[in-house]
Amino acid sequence: MTSRDGWSWTKSGGLKQGVPSIGVIQPATIISSTEVFYDVIIVGAGYTGLTAARDASVSGLKVLLLEARDRIGGRSWSSNINGYSFEMGGTWVSWEQPHVWREISRYQMRNDLENSFDFSRGVNHFQLNAAHGTTFMSHEEEDALLVSGLHKFVNVDGAMGRKIIPFPHDTFHNPEARQHDNLSAQDRLNQIAATLSPNERAALEGFMVLCSGSTMSKMSFLEFLHWWALCGYNYQGCIERLITYKFKGGQSSFAIRFFQEALATGNLSYAFNTPIQAIQDKKNMVEATSKSGRKFQAARLISTIPLNVLNTIAFDPPLDPVRKAAADIGHVNQCIKVHAEVTDKDMRSWTGVTYPRNQLFYAIGDGTTPAGNTHIVAFGGDHFHFHPEENVDTTLQTFQNLAPGKLNIQRLVFHNWSKDEFAKGAWFFSPPNLLSTSLDALRERHGNILLASSDWAVGWRSFIDGAIEEGTRAALTVKNELAKSAPQRANL
Amino acid sequence: MTSRDGWSWTKSGGLKQGVPSIGVIQPATIISSTEVFYDVIIVGAGYTGLTAARDASVSGLKVLLLEARDRIGGRSWSSNINGYSFEMGGTWVSWEQPHVWREISRYQMRNDLENSFDFSRGVNHFQLNAAHGTTFMSHEEEDALLVSGLHKFVNVDGAMGRKIIPFPHDTFHNPEARQHDNLSAQDRLNQIAATLSPNERAALEGFMVLCSGSTMSKMSFLEFLHWWALCGYNYQGCIERLITYKFKGGQSSFAIRFFQEALATGNLSYAFNTPIQAIQDKKNMVEATSKSGRKFQAARLISTIPLNVLNTIAFDPPLDPVRKAAADIGHVNQCIKVHAEVTDKDMRSWTGVTYPRNQLFYAIGDGTTPAGNTHIVAFGGDHFHFHPEENVDTTLQTFQNLAPGKLNIQRLVFHNWSKDEFAKGAWFFSPPNLLSTSLDALRERHGNILLASSDWAVGWRSFIDGAIEEGTRAALTVKNELAKSAPQRANL
Repeated sequence: MTSRDGWSWTKSGGLKQGVPSIGVIQPATIISSTEVFYDVIIVGAGYTGLTAARDASVSGLKVLLLEARDRIGGRSWSSNINGYSFEMGGTWVSWEQPHVWREISRYQMRNDLENSFDFSRGVNHFQLNAAHGTTFMSHEEEDALLVSGLHKFVNVDGAMGRKIIPFPHDTFHNPEARQHDNLSAQDRLNQIAATLSPNERAALEGFMVLCSGSTMSKMSFLEFLHWWALCGYNYQGCIERLITYKFKGGQSSFAIRFFQEALATGNLSYAFNTPIQAIQDKKNMVEATSKSGRKFQAARLISTIPLNVLNTIAFDPPLDPVRKAAADIGHVNQCIKVHAEVTDKDMRSWTGVTYPRNQLFYAIGDGTTPAGNTHIVAFGGDHFHFHPEENVDTTLQTFQNLAPGKLNIQRLVFHNWSKDEFAKGAWFFSPPNLLSTSLDALRERHGNILLASSDWAVGWRSFIDGAIEEGTRAALTVKNELAKSAPQRANL
Repeated sequence: MTSRDGWSWTKSGGLKQGVPSIGVIQPATIISSTEVFYDVIIVGAGYTGLTAARDASVSGLKVLLLEARDRIGGRSWSSNINGYSFEMGGTWVSWEQPHVWREISRYQMRNDLENSFDFSRGVNHFQLNAAHGTTFMSHEEEDALLVSGLHKFVNVDGAMGRKIIPFPHDTFHNPEARQHDNLSAQDRLNQIAATLSPNERAALEGFMVLCSGSTMSKMSFLEFLHWWALCGYNYQGCIERLITYKFKGGQSSFAIRFFQEALATGNLSYAFNTPIQAIQDKKNMVEATSKSGRKFQAARLISTIPLNVLNTIAFDPPLDPVRKAAADIGHVNQCIKVHAEVTDKDMRSWTGVTYPRNQLFYAIGDGTTPAGNTHIVAFGGDHFHFHPEENVDTTLQTFQNLAPGKLNIQRLVFHNWSKDEFAKGAWFFSPPNLLSTSLDALRERHGNILLASSDWAVGWRSFIDGAIEEGTRAALTVKNELAKSAPQRANL
């Protein structure tokens, strides 16, 4: 099936909207004509919604899943082109991500992972194009450069961040962490700038902007410190947990398992292509109204709508002022992720940073396609933002600038998350002051409406893991509230 | 409630069998008088059985949980004495253990953890009593000593074990790992003995025997390497994941959540004090027979019986020869774990190793009791094995030998796992050659009988995490087999 989402370009075919994905669901709607009142409506079929829909339907609740798109996965989905997976959004997973790994283990998919990196042969170097010039170095030298820069950056407490965030799954376990939430990454960089070599600084900034999809000034230092804690407080952990292991069959091969399990219960109704415009808590029930005016009713509703589009929904009663303000501010991630298939096989073992003078600034060899070409994935942020579908020649040029003369591009594949009306950005990344003022409020229920999203998870916030964490939380809450009391039974 | 399990000793009360625990279930049996055929019988109410019982009952299956003891938790349970928890078996958990953490997160218990170590004040030293003499050092020096010894020990591949076990959750992902399974820890020690200082060697051996509860010669080197991989391939990871974070309310406060959730479904029947003697697969159903002769029938049966007692059950048809042989060999862990309450407050920040000349050889300050005393937990292994209830004076003496003159003991609490007829040992630790020959066979189903245990988990084998992994696997398998097909419903 082909989704409306995503873009691809080839020399022969030019630019085309929509890419094939196993995450597209057909039939697009299965709703019982007799069922008019559900136990729970779930808005959004990303990992949060899929997890909630699965857990709720498995526990016997009657579930209606509503999704604006034609596919599951939200901000994580894969296109499958000639049998090869290109990840359009959230990609990498790890056994150090508890909710993700529990599911990978449960679905017996632990041998379905592969390593993005293959430094076993090829050009095997890191190419750093900074304002002051270009340096080629080994991947070991790349690691050493980033270790050195990162250790200076995170060491605000003489303990590499461990004192400020001792429990990675609870940012504010140490209340002192709140005092660090007013810092941007740029503020922190300014504190240590004198200690950084030009290459250290360029590599460090590139890595920061890779994490945030934003700019040094707009991104929260504390949120990065939270990532650092989640990654075991070291750079090797960052690489292994953030950008190493991916599904051979793509993210959609994982997401579909949740959907199929929910469907097999017989308790799941669903409607894709059904964007929601209003959610009303009528006290004795919740009503969701689609943009086409169709109304759906249930005892509870789980909204998985991301922060950056939360205020596009008319909630009645309105959301609390703190949450509304947080949604107005929004997260800062405007990451651009572009895949290219290039003819040079040796580029499989290449990595590069071109910062700040190029739109795409961070790239790695990510695989070898069935045609024997190298798959390179490149990232842009908000420091030099662009829309890759608007001018493909510009996109090709910025990609080629990453390694001049080495990137003979045969194909591009991407999803423009900035223009995506149901996301308005990529994964959550906090600006300064948002977490300390709003995280607790974002997690509050709103009457019969539960708001669940990786955007306000407490653990791997922003990640697939955080989405599953939140879907799990919401489904358990609803189950506990709606569960019929157990029948009395005689003792033996 | 007071369990039959466990022992406590005080000066005034002497030795007493049975300790109080919130894991004791009353009423001990709830079985419907009308229900005669279940979807699934689960034998064993440790974490494997509790997880399977919860998942199966939540998914709508009719479940009968049978347990030989009077309590839940199997080899992980806590006694609660004067409001303070003593862990009788498996204790520590981590956010790097995916199945455990998913449950801690799901039950909103992430703030219910505390750190066993508190080096903020007190004597604050490590005391190494080796054959060649006693050394006092700082905890930083203790860490450095163990890092140095461990790095020599694990570095069989020039990559600190990463080449041999690149995927911690799959010991044999690299088939080359099988070639290392014939080594005991002693064999590996012999290879590097010339490079170790006497203190390095004593600390290293103490740490190994702490992990295995066995001896250097009986324990598998490869299984330790698997632990090392799970711990992030570093010593700090070992300490953090193996022996740092525990539940303030004790393990039983965690286990009870699974049981309560299962019970709330109305689908769970159960009988404690019901040891099983025979399990027969009659093809169209499975029948379990208790030692008292009572028979229970179901479509499937999940046995969570540990390896070391597996051959005490009469399976019909008999288990396959590989599995029977593995159970005859058994795992090698005969750990002795003894808690003491001592009057010296400063010992809170003390740790010690007394190896090999004392029965209890590894100890740490583990807490402060409501009386203001220090709680020390100490471990013995199989190199100098003893039964702590047989002669309390000997037990007090071996405890006091850990820090002569410093341990004025007010109370002892322990569970003798070696004499426990339903465990015959502590957590699984493999001898050489068992994993490569038997792990796959141990995981096989046996007709309508599924055998699930942390003893043969693929990830955190031996840990609570592995138990949840296995219970999850078994419940999903049964659910998928027994699920009624979803009713056909009209499209919208």
